Amino acid sequence: MVIVNYFSIMISVIILGSGNVATHLFKAFNKADKITVKQWFSRTQHSIEQFKDKVEITNNYDDLKEADVYILAVSDDAIHEVSAKLTVTNKFIVHTSGAMTLHEMDKKNDRGVFYPLQTFSKDVEMDFANVPFCLEVENKSNMQILNSLCEAIGSKYYRVNSEQRSSLHLAAVFVNNFVNQLYRTAHEITESTSVDFNILKPLIIETAKKIENLSPYRAQTGPAKRHDKKTIKKHMKLLQNDQHKEIYDLLTKVIQRTHGKKL
Amino acid sequence: MVIVNYFSIMISVIILGSGNVATHLFKAFNKADKITVKQWFSRTQHSIEQFKDKVEITNNYDDLKEADVYILAVSDDAIHEVSAKLTVTNKFIVHTSGAMTLHEMDKKNDRGVFYPLQTFSKDVEMDFANVPFCLEVENKSNMQILNSLCEAIGSKYYRVNSEQRSSLHLAAVFVNNFVNQLYRTAHEITESTSVDFNILKPLIIETAKKIENLSPYRAQTGPAKRHDKKTIKKHMKLLQNDQHKEIYDLLTKVIQRTHGKKL
Repeated sequence: MVIVNYFSIMISVIILGSGNVATHLFKAFNKADKITVKQWFSRTQHSIEQFKDKVEITNNYDDLKEADVYILAVSDDAIHEVSAKLTVTNKFIVHTSGAMTLHEMDKKNDRGVFYPLQTFSKDVEMDFANVPFCLEVENKSNMQILNSLCEAIGSKYYRVNSEQRSSLHLAAVFVNNFVNQLYRTAHEITESTSVDFNILKPLIIETAKKIENLSPYRAQTGPAKRHDKKTIKKHMKLLQNDQHKEIYDLLTKVIQRTHGKKL
Repeated sequence: MVIVNYFSIMISVIILGSGNVATHLFKAFNKADKITVKQWFSRTQHSIEQFKDKVEITNNYDDLKEADVYILAVSDDAIHEVSAKLTVTNKFIVHTSGAMTLHEMDKKNDRGVFYPLQTFSKDVEMDFANVPFCLEVENKSNMQILNSLCEAIGSKYYRVNSEQRSSLHLAAVFVNNFVNQLYRTAHEITESTSVDFNILKPLIIETAKKIENLSPYRAQTGPAKRHDKKTIKKHMKLLQNDQHKEIYDLLTKVIQRTHGKKL
């Protein structure tokens, strides 16, 4: 009897796409002992030209080789098209999108999802220990490949169905894009009195860390939760910008509703 | 000629108040070599009873001793009353509030502000290296005492006037209370599909860290900034809760205005 231990074998990968996610994945896979990046495909070959000494690159669908898994790290709008144009069939293919179901991909291959829930900056190296992956597969037997990929780059992974992934992707907009816009708003407020925005940075970090061990519900403080009308009125008067007023007003109301106070 | 070097002398402090800020300050001062907490006053003596082996405690205004600085760490509403009831005169007194001017305190003493811009949790020890202080004094010669206090507990400090402090306090509501409410909203969204909120925590930390070296303006990404109507529409449809919809709608518009796109 032969027992196949996935952890002891090499996983071969072909990356398709040339954006931030594709590039960060390439770098992480390239460093991992148990992963070989066999090929890197991009429709715009010049965008990955700089990596041609490290990996075989191509922009030709007909050139695609065999691999254990094809990782489609392209924009949501391109997932369907690229998956349909693939010349390989009956292989295992995954996309990296938070918003798309696996049915977005052409069914000539076994499909799955390999969604890294993190924000990737172009020029900042990503520590994959801080990148949780949300995994989904059509064919159960493929789950082990994705698990092994995550383990090889030191990432945590979670089995998440399409509905759950959609809700995570949506929640990520709140904790990433919307939170960042509140940082921007604070920056505008401090700039208006020529005070150093850096003074707020320790508070920003502490606010994020606080919910490591405390639910956001329990972590809440401040004038809205305390129903401190005097401070709220003072703040509304201080705010010069109508958009800032709108945000202040809405989030104050939402906090008060969340914490059971009547307006 | 005698040169007084504040860094080499002991600073004597009397703390007034028994809340989170008072308690965290007491603990930090008590550990610092160059600070003596001479007395701790609270109108409700039982609330600091547990510290009576470490410091002299009192609830009697007439008992107050002499010290280099009296730190009024009471709620905003109590600053005026407590400062007026003080029996000491011509001493140096500071409050710790972000929202109040120094004129809130009775003018029989030299006044100042010693505002720690951070969120304090009751049971979590605070590393004062992460607590920036916003300082203001009526009488210039008192600034050195506040600087030395900060240095003795390892905190950064900034000279900030009342108008600037008000804008920092207001901005802090955005990056602390409002950001935390967005975390809460994300928690509600993930709970609605029974998916683990913990998956979002690395993204929450990374979002806070990203602006260490990048302005929030430059750090922005996502469907709102990209003007990705398809995803925005999909998200609005996914959101079940009217409050969540309102937040999504408003912050999407604000991001789009900030980044120069028309709706």
